[in-house]
Amino acid sequence: MFVYKMTIAYDGTAYSGWQVQPNAISIQQILQGALQTILRVPEITIIGSGRTDAGVHALGQVAHFRYAEELNLGRLQLSLNGLIPADIRIKKIELAPSHFHAQYSAIGKEYHYHIHLERVLDPFRRHYSWHLYTPIDKELLLQACQLFVGTHDFTSFANEAHAGSASRNPVRTIYRVDPIFTEEGVRIEFHGNGFLYKMVRNIVGAVAEVATGKRSLKEIQEIFAAKDRRRAGLAAPPKGLFLVRVDYPT
Amino acid sequence: MFVYKMTIAYDGTAYSGWQVQPNAISIQQILQGALQTILRVPEITIIGSGRTDAGVHALGQVAHFRYAEELNLGRLQLSLNGLIPADIRIKKIELAPSHFHAQYSAIGKEYHYHIHLERVLDPFRRHYSWHLYTPIDKELLLQACQLFVGTHDFTSFANEAHAGSASRNPVRTIYRVDPIFTEEGVRIEFHGNGFLYKMVRNIVGAVAEVATGKRSLKEIQEIFAAKDRRRAGLAAPPKGLFLVRVDYPT
Repeated sequence: MFVYKMTIAYDGTAYSGWQVQPNAISIQQILQGALQTILRVPEITIIGSGRTDAGVHALGQVAHFRYAEELNLGRLQLSLNGLIPADIRIKKIELAPSHFHAQYSAIGKEYHYHIHLERVLDPFRRHYSWHLYTPIDKELLLQACQLFVGTHDFTSFANEAHAGSASRNPVRTIYRVDPIFTEEGVRIEFHGNGFLYKMVRNIVGAVAEVATGKRSLKEIQEIFAAKDRRRAGLAAPPKGLFLVRVDYPT
Repeated sequence: MFVYKMTIAYDGTAYSGWQVQPNAISIQQILQGALQTILRVPEITIIGSGRTDAGVHALGQVAHFRYAEELNLGRLQLSLNGLIPADIRIKKIELAPSHFHAQYSAIGKEYHYHIHLERVLDPFRRHYSWHLYTPIDKELLLQACQLFVGTHDFTSFANEAHAGSASRNPVRTIYRVDPIFTEEGVRIEFHGNGFLYKMVRNIVGAVAEVATGKRSLKEIQEIFAAKDRRRAGLAAPPKGLFLVRVDYPT
């Protein structure tokens, strides 16, 4: 059995997210369909490092599939990119060790969240950023971001992936949450050993509330302590979120 | 009579171009429709600095309209942006002198053309660049671009705007044609006193042919001398082209 590791970029605007679901077009489904056509098999499963929601983008999503034969990697990449729409691109295909699993082998992820702060929306950013009309306090944003760095129980900042989903360990370690200020706004960079469902967007929603004066830093600490999702505010919209990289042991 | 000058950015992907035409949706038509609604007038004409073709983008298109009353500029901008789709944004509205005309008062224009050179298409650039799979010779590109700088008869690099259109003076002065090399490709910046129809895309098509070894520099000079559009090659696709700025006398 050979394990194929793919690095994938996609513009999530047109899709219902990474994961296959009924009555909606997902990136996983598009890729599986193309791979089935190329390999002439009735069914094949491509496993991603994790789901991304509808409208969320990826620069470096990672996924794998298992197949009995050894394939020409360059030709496979060209064939796949020839069959799938241009808003999804396979950046790289490589052979991985037999124990490799895109989700379970992952030891870290980097996400970037783009907030657009110009008075008038930049039409080229409309699908790729959250346009905040309210001015933000940079110093408060920096301080709020730092509250999330370290090892914490992130229950208050996670949604259930689906009703009745088995409760997973809600402790995660975030190595850094860095707001990088640019001419048109701010990009908040997250790097951690893993993220719970909707965790990045919930954190961005919370730090934006602090930076725009709607909540205090102390309230964030209280929300953390409450371990109750209902205490947190609204999640930031999906369109500003990019999965940049998935880390694996080398 | 008051003259209102608007600076407009748009993602041209979804439109048939700037100019109103039958059976197609243009940016001019969208803006005129919104302005008619706001001013409650049956018809109003918005005149742009020039047309942009289907798929061509703008960061700083300029247009004007005349209206008998003095309007609150901030409120007008908000109302227009509230009525039009998010892929078109009014960046600025200001009062202009009574003799101002977006097309006839223009004394210069800046265009950028984006060529994407990575092996695999970046899905986020699919509507905003020309993806060339062939490697380019940077030095040849630089030299080819320099052939277009200065005052020339650009007949060979212009298309007729429409069949039987009156022949206009084909002499234009280009101040600079600068290829700016970036991580993902090259952006060719054009600044001149004016550009004929499809001139930038025809020039980009020609310099790309030189940079990929399909034509020699000498052939470009011969095409110039021939003053015959049929001698030039294919125009570069519209999606890589951005109208960046229109200059007016200060």
